[in-house]
Amino acid sequence: MRLATLRVGDETRAARLDGDSYTLLPSRDVGELLASGEGWAEAARQGGGPRIPIEEAEFATLVPHPNKIVCLGLNYASHIKEMGRDTPQYPTLFAKYDGSLIGAHDPITLPCVSDRVDWEAELGFVIGRAARHVPKEKALDYVAGYTVVNDVTVRDYQRRTREFLSGKTFEATTPVGPVLVTADEFGGQEPDLEIRCEVDGEVMQSSRTSDLLFGIADIVSYLSDIITLLPGDVICTGTPGGVGDGREPKVYLKPGQTLRTVIKGLGETRNLCVVEQSA
Amino acid sequence: MRLATLRVGDETRAARLDGDSYTLLPSRDVGELLASGEGWAEAARQGGGPRIPIEEAEFATLVPHPNKIVCLGLNYASHIKEMGRDTPQYPTLFAKYDGSLIGAHDPITLPCVSDRVDWEAELGFVIGRAARHVPKEKALDYVAGYTVVNDVTVRDYQRRTREFLSGKTFEATTPVGPVLVTADEFGGQEPDLEIRCEVDGEVMQSSRTSDLLFGIADIVSYLSDIITLLPGDVICTGTPGGVGDGREPKVYLKPGQTLRTVIKGLGETRNLCVVEQSA
Repeated sequence: MRLATLRVGDETRAARLDGDSYTLLPSRDVGELLASGEGWAEAARQGGGPRIPIEEAEFATLVPHPNKIVCLGLNYASHIKEMGRDTPQYPTLFAKYDGSLIGAHDPITLPCVSDRVDWEAELGFVIGRAARHVPKEKALDYVAGYTVVNDVTVRDYQRRTREFLSGKTFEATTPVGPVLVTADEFGGQEPDLEIRCEVDGEVMQSSRTSDLLFGIADIVSYLSDIITLLPGDVICTGTPGGVGDGREPKVYLKPGQTLRTVIKGLGETRNLCVVEQSA
Repeated sequence: MRLATLRVGDETRAARLDGDSYTLLPSRDVGELLASGEGWAEAARQGGGPRIPIEEAEFATLVPHPNKIVCLGLNYASHIKEMGRDTPQYPTLFAKYDGSLIGAHDPITLPCVSDRVDWEAELGFVIGRAARHVPKEKALDYVAGYTVVNDVTVRDYQRRTREFLSGKTFEATTPVGPVLVTADEFGGQEPDLEIRCEVDGEVMQSSRTSDLLFGIADIVSYLSDIITLLPGDVICTGTPGGVGDGREPKVYLKPGQTLRTVIKGLGETRNLCVVEQSA
């Protein structure tokens, strides 16, 4: 099943993809749907409402207000190498705030205070039920599904201090979507999918999600020892090698460029880079 | 004006302190009150409802579901020195999730996975209106008021990777409250208040909030260049010297100890340390 959060007039609605149209569901967004209880999947499967042809669908960010957005750094060997870091023994965790999230086709806001904006194609996943102290063997039961994320990063702010957060949570920079592909479509396994990032059609990152150092079950189990994961929480699993900042010479996103992030089997985000109109 | 979020039956309610009782307000909590619009202060001043004697008040955490909890690290010279870090040129920012928040008198959960839990007494403040690209000179206009925070930290998790987050956001560890003292009580100035932390009556930290490296206005202005601050956002300004991990030998919180965090003029939190009942 493929679920999206669509813009409908001034509101948003959760929707299910049925062939060449989306069927609107009662929930306002996929986050609200997942929080509606353990029967969310059945409700989503059976819910019926107005239909929107696929070519008219306007994607809001998949979960507009997650309780948590948790990101992993340094989770592909190729990216650890290009950033000159040691292989970590534990997942490197940092946060984003929801003001950084945008829809699958929304413009990426290049901040007026920096010209060092970089791409980070990532497999995202969303929590489907509350998870606390979950062993690794059961951890995948708590995953609602998978999606595409680009953890767009403002490198100079990321490096200003020893903490990544300030470079990771700039307003309207992080596309998530277009859809949530529910976990049952992967037969209870962690998805092994091709992941690719292109800038104006040039391939910048290309890897497979099976190259993750800490996999989905590792991450859920580890996080659930720290804090209760809640339905709708968005987890970004880290990026493979090929970021602009790891190149010689370094390259960053420029106004007018299009960032495309593709995970085969999940879909793609495609975002025009637009400079912020300063206040 | 002093505002709190009180537990009333199975719910919470925002409340205003009037002499020796709290007057319940229509909003469910201080966060909802602040998000109700620019007239929140007038509404809080004039709102009337049932009264609760001060000795019967049960404090929920001040803002149960802030859109953002932003914490500063390394913001007092004395703490920078004891942790062996360099004086930062920019604010060091990291996040917490709201599942870590507890009320002013709630027990602190010592996690079953660590025995290295440490205190960090902090001045907290809460945003009163949306702030984006705010110059420093106007930044204090966006602050609703001030409160007491203890940014309780799980040191081994904090140091497992290069990012602080995992040690900073353990479930039910971070007291915030008991009240929000509105900014007008400080005459438009940054509060210069005595801040103190005690473990079982022994003074562990003692400083003044005027010793902050980055002050309130600096923080608001800097953050607002990164992302829009929203009413109810909770900002924790960093801790002075005297944490348990900076001592020789190091000391950590033990089950049965009481952590008391006092900011003169704002009030105090007082929290019993209780070991988590593991799953």
